[in-house]
Amino acid sequence: MKISVVGGGQLGQMMALSCIKLGVSFSFLDPSKDACAQLVGDLIQHDYDSQEGIDAVIACSDRVTFEFESVPAQTVAKIAKKLPVFPSAKALEVARDRLFEKTLFQKLGIQTAPFADILTQQDLDDAAKTIGLPAIIKTRTLGYDGKGQKVLKTESDVAGTFAELGGVPLLYEGFVDFDDELSCIAVRSESGECRFYPLVQNEHKQSMLHCSVVQNNHPLQALGEQYAKSVLDELDYVGVMTFEYFRKGDQLLANEVAPRVHNSGHWSIEGAVCDQFENHIRAVAGFPLGSTKTRDNVALFNVIGKACDEMALMSIEGAYLHMYHKSEKVARKIGHITLVEDDKDLFNQKMAQIEALLNNDLG
Amino acid sequence: MKISVVGGGQLGQMMALSCIKLGVSFSFLDPSKDACAQLVGDLIQHDYDSQEGIDAVIACSDRVTFEFESVPAQTVAKIAKKLPVFPSAKALEVARDRLFEKTLFQKLGIQTAPFADILTQQDLDDAAKTIGLPAIIKTRTLGYDGKGQKVLKTESDVAGTFAELGGVPLLYEGFVDFDDELSCIAVRSESGECRFYPLVQNEHKQSMLHCSVVQNNHPLQALGEQYAKSVLDELDYVGVMTFEYFRKGDQLLANEVAPRVHNSGHWSIEGAVCDQFENHIRAVAGFPLGSTKTRDNVALFNVIGKACDEMALMSIEGAYLHMYHKSEKVARKIGHITLVEDDKDLFNQKMAQIEALLNNDLG
Repeated sequence: MKISVVGGGQLGQMMALSCIKLGVSFSFLDPSKDACAQLVGDLIQHDYDSQEGIDAVIACSDRVTFEFESVPAQTVAKIAKKLPVFPSAKALEVARDRLFEKTLFQKLGIQTAPFADILTQQDLDDAAKTIGLPAIIKTRTLGYDGKGQKVLKTESDVAGTFAELGGVPLLYEGFVDFDDELSCIAVRSESGECRFYPLVQNEHKQSMLHCSVVQNNHPLQALGEQYAKSVLDELDYVGVMTFEYFRKGDQLLANEVAPRVHNSGHWSIEGAVCDQFENHIRAVAGFPLGSTKTRDNVALFNVIGKACDEMALMSIEGAYLHMYHKSEKVARKIGHITLVEDDKDLFNQKMAQIEALLNNDLG
Repeated sequence: MKISVVGGGQLGQMMALSCIKLGVSFSFLDPSKDACAQLVGDLIQHDYDSQEGIDAVIACSDRVTFEFESVPAQTVAKIAKKLPVFPSAKALEVARDRLFEKTLFQKLGIQTAPFADILTQQDLDDAAKTIGLPAIIKTRTLGYDGKGQKVLKTESDVAGTFAELGGVPLLYEGFVDFDDELSCIAVRSESGECRFYPLVQNEHKQSMLHCSVVQNNHPLQALGEQYAKSVLDELDYVGVMTFEYFRKGDQLLANEVAPRVHNSGHWSIEGAVCDQFENHIRAVAGFPLGSTKTRDNVALFNVIGKACDEMALMSIEGAYLHMYHKSEKVARKIGHITLVEDDKDLFNQKMAQIEALLNNDLG
């Protein structure tokens, strides 16, 4: 089985590291000669929308998947004419547009923050009145890690913001004073079987994921799975999809989905029987899904901008270093650390130890 | 850190699959264009004794290691003049010669079967009298998986055997009516720290490893570690070394060592906190050693000659399929399966299930 991944970053790299053992080999379509996934597969170095790149992908693959959602729609359509492509063009279309995504949540009865579609400054002024302030305004497509969004606190923040964000379609979201952000990684097979990892609680710093802690037996697990399943089924989705929720008390509001493996699931490599990368590729390849059974105490820290104290880190039993072979750069995710420690007290101690060994540079 | 591995088979492949995450990248010196490790590193396709190959290894590496013991001594010597090479030439020299190895065991007070050095048919006739029959006669170098050896039961088996085995130096070993074969994977760092995995019980079919079952808390663990430590320290060894023992009652007889990661340790990928491949590379790279802490019930089956029923296998929770991307061929190791299952009854049931899914072709 040969699988091509559109995108050759760390997500593709980890798909290959987890699935070469299943007899799968990988190619990566990526315009960068430095794409870090090429360590574990063939690099098809072309732009995402180039015909040469698309032809090369089709020539060498049995099936195709993606490591990011903003793949050109034309690329997906062209490949899908020749080969099975998962997730589907339709799923990508919904998930890469914040309005489509929120509208789908609404249709399926999934709670969200109040929102409005913004195509003009007038729409923005209106939403500030009807939904109210504070609010968050986001580009409908292409944003991640806090890019392409702005917090609106006062009316003066609203003025001129449409132009400031580039005059592109925006989504206005009423501010939710949430208690925490939870995410749920789910996977669905071609036959419609769904499996879910436990909810994880995510802590951000400067809008970038800093730390995720697995929440085994969370009281909102069933609701999180129910919401996820309704979206997966509605889209007839195949592969891993990630659901980001805001929790306020016992309420769960869907924030957004990512139609792919996700940073907040990297802990599953050591923390679950079958990790998110393997389960995604199992779904894409048509293999049976793997178990999402998870160890008792599991957490993940990102390594951002600068390497951590790797020698000290490697001396902590149960701490797993994952460096992506990317150069250091302010605010760039260059690695992560997973901690698995069955003893809860030791787990908490080691969490503090790891945190102290990070040299993250968020800029 | 760039590490070159002499040999590009599944052992090198698994070193890379376990250690790319540590920020290490790999090259493999192997004469075969099909060397399966090239999936996860650069292939330096040259003969093991070619100057071009040696030059290429030196040019691209910080440190060098091996995935098999019969590397030409000249190759090791030439590389070692330029770069740190682990294990050392001295360790390889001892471990690849069954006489040197047995002599070292004897010197260190480690029990072995009675043995004799055989350089002529006369030596062989003499040994059959002094040590007695039955016995096993083995080539001093290059044998593995039962190749280059013969069981001698009667005097007629002895006649002509020296010529039959190629007229090369042989080792005569008195037959040990052992209860089982155990192996111990050990690792030693440059600073002399040693760590040990639990003993595993190995079951062979037609002289090839069929199955290994981890023996946590085995009463002979301490003795196995003591023997191993004495050899590692004597050789000032760096890296993973594997010790094969015969057990008879509460006696442990050293059979042989392999100066490398070993088939009977593949279970450690999922069964231990830090696997044998990562610990070997940690030792070679000068990183801190990893924990050898092992899950309760762990076993390994080899996939030999023909693929197993992979779809059924992937449906068993806790069964991990590892295919090496090698073509099917009678008696060729093409993959392995690890089982980790905390519940002992389920573990036993799943062992039987996996065994039934194998289609091994031993010829």
